[in-house]
Amino acid sequence: MSDTVSLDDPYRELRRDLHRHPEPAWCEFYTTARIVEALRTRDLTELHVGPDALAGDERMNVPDDDELETWFERAREAGADPTLLETLAGGYTGCVAVAERGEGPVVGLRVDIDALPIPESTDGSHVPAAEGFRSGNEGYMHACGHDAHATIGLGVLDAVLDSDFSGTLKVFFQPSEEQVSGGKPMADSGHLDDVDYFYAVHIGLDHPSGEVVCGIDGFLAVRHFLAEFEGEPAHAGARPEQGRNTVQAMAAAVQNLYAIPRHADGPTRVNAGLVGGGTATNIIPEESYVEGEVRGGTTELAAHMSDHADRILRSAAEMHDVDVDVSTKGEAPSAESDAELADVVREAAGDVAGVTEIVERADLGGSEDATYLMRRVQERGGLACYVGVGTDHPGGHHTSTFDVVEDDVRVGIDVLSGAITRLSATPV
Amino acid sequence: MSDTVSLDDPYRELRRDLHRHPEPAWCEFYTTARIVEALRTRDLTELHVGPDALAGDERMNVPDDDELETWFERAREAGADPTLLETLAGGYTGCVAVAERGEGPVVGLRVDIDALPIPESTDGSHVPAAEGFRSGNEGYMHACGHDAHATIGLGVLDAVLDSDFSGTLKVFFQPSEEQVSGGKPMADSGHLDDVDYFYAVHIGLDHPSGEVVCGIDGFLAVRHFLAEFEGEPAHAGARPEQGRNTVQAMAAAVQNLYAIPRHADGPTRVNAGLVGGGTATNIIPEESYVEGEVRGGTTELAAHMSDHADRILRSAAEMHDVDVDVSTKGEAPSAESDAELADVVREAAGDVAGVTEIVERADLGGSEDATYLMRRVQERGGLACYVGVGTDHPGGHHTSTFDVVEDDVRVGIDVLSGAITRLSATPV
Amino acid sequence: MSDTVSLDDPYRELRRDLHRHPEPAWCEFYTTARIVEALRTRDLTELHVGPDALAGDERMNVPDDDELETWFERAREAGADPTLLETLAGGYTGCVAVAERGEGPVVGLRVDIDALPIPESTDGSHVPAAEGFRSGNEGYMHACGHDAHATIGLGVLDAVLDSDFSGTLKVFFQPSEEQVSGGKPMADSGHLDDVDYFYAVHIGLDHPSGEVVCGIDGFLAVRHFLAEFEGEPAHAGARPEQGRNTVQAMAAAVQNLYAIPRHADGPTRVNAGLVGGGTATNIIPEESYVEGEVRGGTTELAAHMSDHADRILRSAAEMHDVDVDVSTKGEAPSAESDAELADVVREAAGDVAGVTEIVERADLGGSEDATYLMRRVQERGGLACYVGVGTDHPGGHHTSTFDVVEDDVRVGIDVLSGAITRLSATPV
Amino acid sequence: MSDTVSLDDPYRELRRDLHRHPEPAWCEFYTTARIVEALRTRDLTELHVGPDALAGDERMNVPDDDELETWFERAREAGADPTLLETLAGGYTGCVAVAERGEGPVVGLRVDIDALPIPESTDGSHVPAAEGFRSGNEGYMHACGHDAHATIGLGVLDAVLDSDFSGTLKVFFQPSEEQVSGGKPMADSGHLDDVDYFYAVHIGLDHPSGEVVCGIDGFLAVRHFLAEFEGEPAHAGARPEQGRNTVQAMAAAVQNLYAIPRHADGPTRVNAGLVGGGTATNIIPEESYVEGEVRGGTTELAAHMSDHADRILRSAAEMHDVDVDVSTKGEAPSAESDAELADVVREAAGDVAGVTEIVERADLGGSEDATYLMRRVQERGGLACYVGVGTDHPGGHHTSTFDVVEDDVRVGIDVLSGAITRLSATPV
Repeated sequence: MSDTVSLDDPYRELRRDLHRHPEPAWCEFYTTARIVEALRTRDLTELHVGPDALAGDERMNVPDDDELETWFERAREAGADPTLLETLAGGYTGCVAVAERGEGPVVGLRVDIDALPIPESTDGSHVPAAEGFRSGNEGYMHACGHDAHATIGLGVLDAVLDSDFSGTLKVFFQPSEEQVSGGKPMADSGHLDDVDYFYAVHIGLDHPSGEVVCGIDGFLAVRHFLAEFEGEPAHAGARPEQGRNTVQAMAAAVQNLYAIPRHADGPTRVNAGLVGGGTATNIIPEESYVEGEVRGGTTELAAHMSDHADRILRSAAEMHDVDVDVSTKGEAPSAESDAELADVVREAAGDVAGVTEIVERADLGGSEDATYLMRRVQERGGLACYVGVGTDHPGGHHTSTFDVVEDDVRVGIDVLSGAITRLSATPV
Repeated sequence: MSDTVSLDDPYRELRRDLHRHPEPAWCEFYTTARIVEALRTRDLTELHVGPDALAGDERMNVPDDDELETWFERAREAGADPTLLETLAGGYTGCVAVAERGEGPVVGLRVDIDALPIPESTDGSHVPAAEGFRSGNEGYMHACGHDAHATIGLGVLDAVLDSDFSGTLKVFFQPSEEQVSGGKPMADSGHLDDVDYFYAVHIGLDHPSGEVVCGIDGFLAVRHFLAEFEGEPAHAGARPEQGRNTVQAMAAAVQNLYAIPRHADGPTRVNAGLVGGGTATNIIPEESYVEGEVRGGTTELAAHMSDHADRILRSAAEMHDVDVDVSTKGEAPSAESDAELADVVREAAGDVAGVTEIVERADLGGSEDATYLMRRVQERGGLACYVGVGTDHPGGHHTSTFDVVEDDVRVGIDVLSGAITRLSATPV
Repeated sequence: MSDTVSLDDPYRELRRDLHRHPEPAWCEFYTTARIVEALRTRDLTELHVGPDALAGDERMNVPDDDELETWFERAREAGADPTLLETLAGGYTGCVAVAERGEGPVVGLRVDIDALPIPESTDGSHVPAAEGFRSGNEGYMHACGHDAHATIGLGVLDAVLDSDFSGTLKVFFQPSEEQVSGGKPMADSGHLDDVDYFYAVHIGLDHPSGEVVCGIDGFLAVRHFLAEFEGEPAHAGARPEQGRNTVQAMAAAVQNLYAIPRHADGPTRVNAGLVGGGTATNIIPEESYVEGEVRGGTTELAAHMSDHADRILRSAAEMHDVDVDVSTKGEAPSAESDAELADVVREAAGDVAGVTEIVERADLGGSEDATYLMRRVQERGGLACYVGVGTDHPGGHHTSTFDVVEDDVRVGIDVLSGAITRLSATPV
Repeated sequence: MSDTVSLDDPYRELRRDLHRHPEPAWCEFYTTARIVEALRTRDLTELHVGPDALAGDERMNVPDDDELETWFERAREAGADPTLLETLAGGYTGCVAVAERGEGPVVGLRVDIDALPIPESTDGSHVPAAEGFRSGNEGYMHACGHDAHATIGLGVLDAVLDSDFSGTLKVFFQPSEEQVSGGKPMADSGHLDDVDYFYAVHIGLDHPSGEVVCGIDGFLAVRHFLAEFEGEPAHAGARPEQGRNTVQAMAAAVQNLYAIPRHADGPTRVNAGLVGGGTATNIIPEESYVEGEVRGGTTELAAHMSDHADRILRSAAEMHDVDVDVSTKGEAPSAESDAELADVVREAAGDVAGVTEIVERADLGGSEDATYLMRRVQERGGLACYVGVGTDHPGGHHTSTFDVVEDDVRVGIDVLSGAITRLSATPV
């Protein structure tokens, strides 16, 4: 079941073009435009772009207008279609492609498209640097393979349309996965509500080239929060008692956040990942913040952590007589891959060139907001499954030397399109 | 202005008898009875005992019934008059002696009578041990000289009545000074309301024999608090998440109590002096407590500390989802000695045998609830002054080897009675 | 496979006698003597008592001499054989009974014998109170069924000796399980070194009467620690800077202990179960302590917690310039029950009257130092298994109304002796 | 003793030119050059510039090369003499002017010249904005009057040289006062070692126009510190145990820094004024920092705070298994103004037009590294005094609307030059 495979040039070009233009959450203007341009050349039934692809009110953590405007302009300068860009204005990125092909099940595939605020390596051993498609948006990088995911999305669409598939295929190009804030608005868009079978896909994840993971579980439910403390400044030498000290509140919060009780029902996590406060050594600090996250092995465990965290943040503020505003910047539940769909992947993978090892199940051990989409489908009676496609990545995920073996994108296309056409022929 | 002096035998016997029967706050049954018996042999106009000497509702930190009963019985067994004891039942200790002697100012003198929960030294070099009047109430001790104070109170009464004093003298034998919880009920008893001149006295305070301090200031205002946390136990291994952990709340409180902002207006203090919690290593601790104090160089500074402390205790409880009850166990304001009365002491001391050094002013640097009585008098237009009488004390105050030179009690009697008779002759 | 069963009178009397005389760790003088007296009437090959049953140097958390002496005297007064008691002096409790019966495997059975510092219910609905065998050692109670365990130990010995068992049976009557400090000295006694098959047994554990759990896993590795802080007292008002404050150190330790990083490899636990410090509100606290525990789903996870805890305790002391002494008061590793032995239990249980439900596997979710003995046997090539015998217990384990259905002791005897004789007939 | 006065145009122009070019610590390139250019037109005996004016090794908190270079270039572009600038390269700013005028005492005057990182108000009511001399270095501002101080320095030099002064005058133009890191290198430069009388001067300080404070005390000794923590990043969801968490260390440090024991000998202060750490919500934070300060009413009290702070920072790092580097970024002792010199100021002020109120003594209640220079002089047998010159400043010190009444600069010149010539005529 394994020969070498090779990614076709158009897909390679698309992937490299996306890699050259990494864009962060809700700023995927160029990326969306580039994908939509490609989709317009395909024979689709529907193409929902930007606001039509999302429940816009559910978007979290949207950057401020200046930030949006900067990326919007950058996309325009990079050559994105200005009319199309207008559709996305205000941070309504992403799209949903729908292709109806007669009777049969409705199958969904979700790929994510956003990049990370990580400067890309300039080292000669880093392929994108060596071959000239390194990030042109300095400080940002496709360091988690979403450029490959978007390409797989298009490739699977092409392959399915080129097969004897009967039914409806929907491909979801989702923005803002890295901040787990794009999954919910896409899950609530309505486009998932008639989906019978649903796949999401991820490349790499420390699985080598040739390996396929049929069903991934172990998603930690997660909530990103931002707590902003506001107090009162004062001269620290002359009038310390007149200050209301936010750094003290922040420190009390941090100490006690990590000390939220462990839970017998499974893993829990908390991290005060980003903190700051104050203006000068001799001023009682008026403003401070903690940006952090809680997680749990189940949605309930994450809620246990989240409830404690909210209370701790509020009472730490009260303790030091300062105000606090706690907001949610991203969120995702846990989810389970359905065995029926994983089985179909296993069967399909057996026929795909380049596949050398089939892993039935693996744990993610992290978080992913594809779980919102999976649960939406499962709650309405459908089945859902998260598939892993191995690739030899030189640097780890979220590091400056991450890269994918491009031919493994071909493997991803073949495995997913194989599973989807199988489902059309033999519903589970 | 100095020869040696000698304390008369009856006073020596009284002091030693009181020393042999040290009693803690609100349990001064034997002590009060012994003093009242002595007072009954004097020519008094009024004698207010127990409930009549106090605003009973203002008493704080009264021991529970068992504790009161134990000391009550002990006093009876030690030979106190049973009928008299009945008057004191329920922890209404202390008394006020009033002697009217014609026209003239109303002068008050306050002495305190309670002892400390400190085991007394058995060492041969400790005079009470060597001479057979060591504490008979094991674990308790007159380690701050209140046995001498009570004796001075009686001695001053005798000396003034034996002089050409014209006016009214009131001697206040105050319970529960060590816990700063007897001052307020005595201040609010009504008996101070017509006092024109008021003295309080303390022996020792690191001033050697022969030294007299005319006016003491630098009283730190203080509040003793008790915070009792109540949560929910749980098995720490099997179900940690089901507990509501009071030790975590207590620890968060302690850390943040010490971190109350310093104040530019003067000294502040805080101490979590006594803490405890929990039952077993493998149980999430259901109950914990902090007993502590805040102080300030002024009543306002103590209030600054107290407000912060209350808020911190409450929010530490909320932080760990437990309940807390915060109560005040003792309290005293700051106060200032009036210069006019200190001047009279200086003049009187100049005539007293045994006085070798007269100090105009000194700072206490601690707390004392005589300040309640001083302020009561001052607020109603009178004058008040806190006087120090030196003595060579081998051990420090509140240590097991504290003792006084008995002849210095004589000096105290002479200085105070001298000042009081002077005030009668030449009001200030 | 189930009829009702009834516990024979002598066992019932033994159990009730032990219940009437609950003794804590290393003070099981009466208990050991009572068991040894019973064993002496059996036909044993060897009987190792006290120091001969233990690696005495490995004992942890032995009470001080006064405490040992008190319980020793109590045992004498209760009628224990004085000569026998002398053997146990100094807290060398427990014993090992050995019965050789020809060729065959060496089989070990471990039962624990210590009680808990819990006052027993006096309620009429509590059987021991109603039927007159409530604890005579006020404040202590067999609240975890070790009285039943000891009885099972004797019952199994009798049943096996009465069967066609061929081989050697060793019954280990282990002291100090509740403090997980008796397992290690018994494991290192040498008596386990030739054991081929090893069982430990526990009654109750929330399994109802009629239920048998063939193999229990999920032991949390545990370490009990005691951290004693020593600083310097000072007057909190007059000289706060001269103190070295142990309550601050303790609070800093507590806050950070609970915040030890969670671990991806499995459950971890920490609890500051018992804390205290200080002497008076106005004294900077010179002495404080934390008694607590860390646990982990594996021995490695417990070590992760323990390493962090040690470092935190030491650095919290250093942070506040005080000294700390950290000692280990109890310890137990994790362990796994071997499937081969659990299978034999399953087969045996199928034949036992009173058994209505056979559970293959269950998790303890707590800690037990039988694991030391299990691992000792497993490390030397033997097999080990921890068996559960259900009983309807009205109150939970470690509560004042815990009790067992005595007839379930019979079930325990039959299941264990059945398994042991099977092993002799058909080694696994 | 008071008519209105008016500042001469050249001084006004100098002050406004300096105001237009505010420069932070060790970057006072334009400022120094501008002052040196003016000094070169005076009849000086010596002029020590840059490295010759400082003990260069004692400089603290010097910015990195990029920062220095940026300000250096800015100064060049603003028209400063390039050759002169070269002398200052590397952050050797400031100068000392020496004028010998025959026999007589050596008198020193210190003025400081650095600005603050505060954006200046653009409001029409803010005089520098209205009259066109607002800061041209956006984000920086002379918000503490050091532009006026430098002008006073030159004005006093002119006035003294124009008088019948006999002796030597040294004017110290000191860099980096705001960060209390310029005082020590100038104190140790050697130029103070023969100074008999030494003045430092400050404008404003909440004293209104017309007021002169003859001798300022109450300097809080201070130390600025920077603690940089370095740990180990890890994925907060997948591998929390692999991180070494610097935000936890920082928070533990902050909590305990504020809780350093209060001190009975006088005021103490601590502030964690500026904190930060971490990179992303899902990464265990590898790097964090606290920039803060400790202060004390005396140098000893500041040392008490500093010793505790160092220990707390180190042990907080150890507690969370991370590294920490603690460095001192600025420092100043306390000091006392000598009464003899204050008396001379009082006399001089009595003759100065514009002076309406003479205050003998006042407390600064803050910190100032002029104290290094004062102590240097005092330690070698000289006298020192810190003088306040009132001015109606609309905004407070260190706020964006701070400004001075320029005519009060004239008052400052007259008072100081008056005192200095008096000292020459009548040494104290």
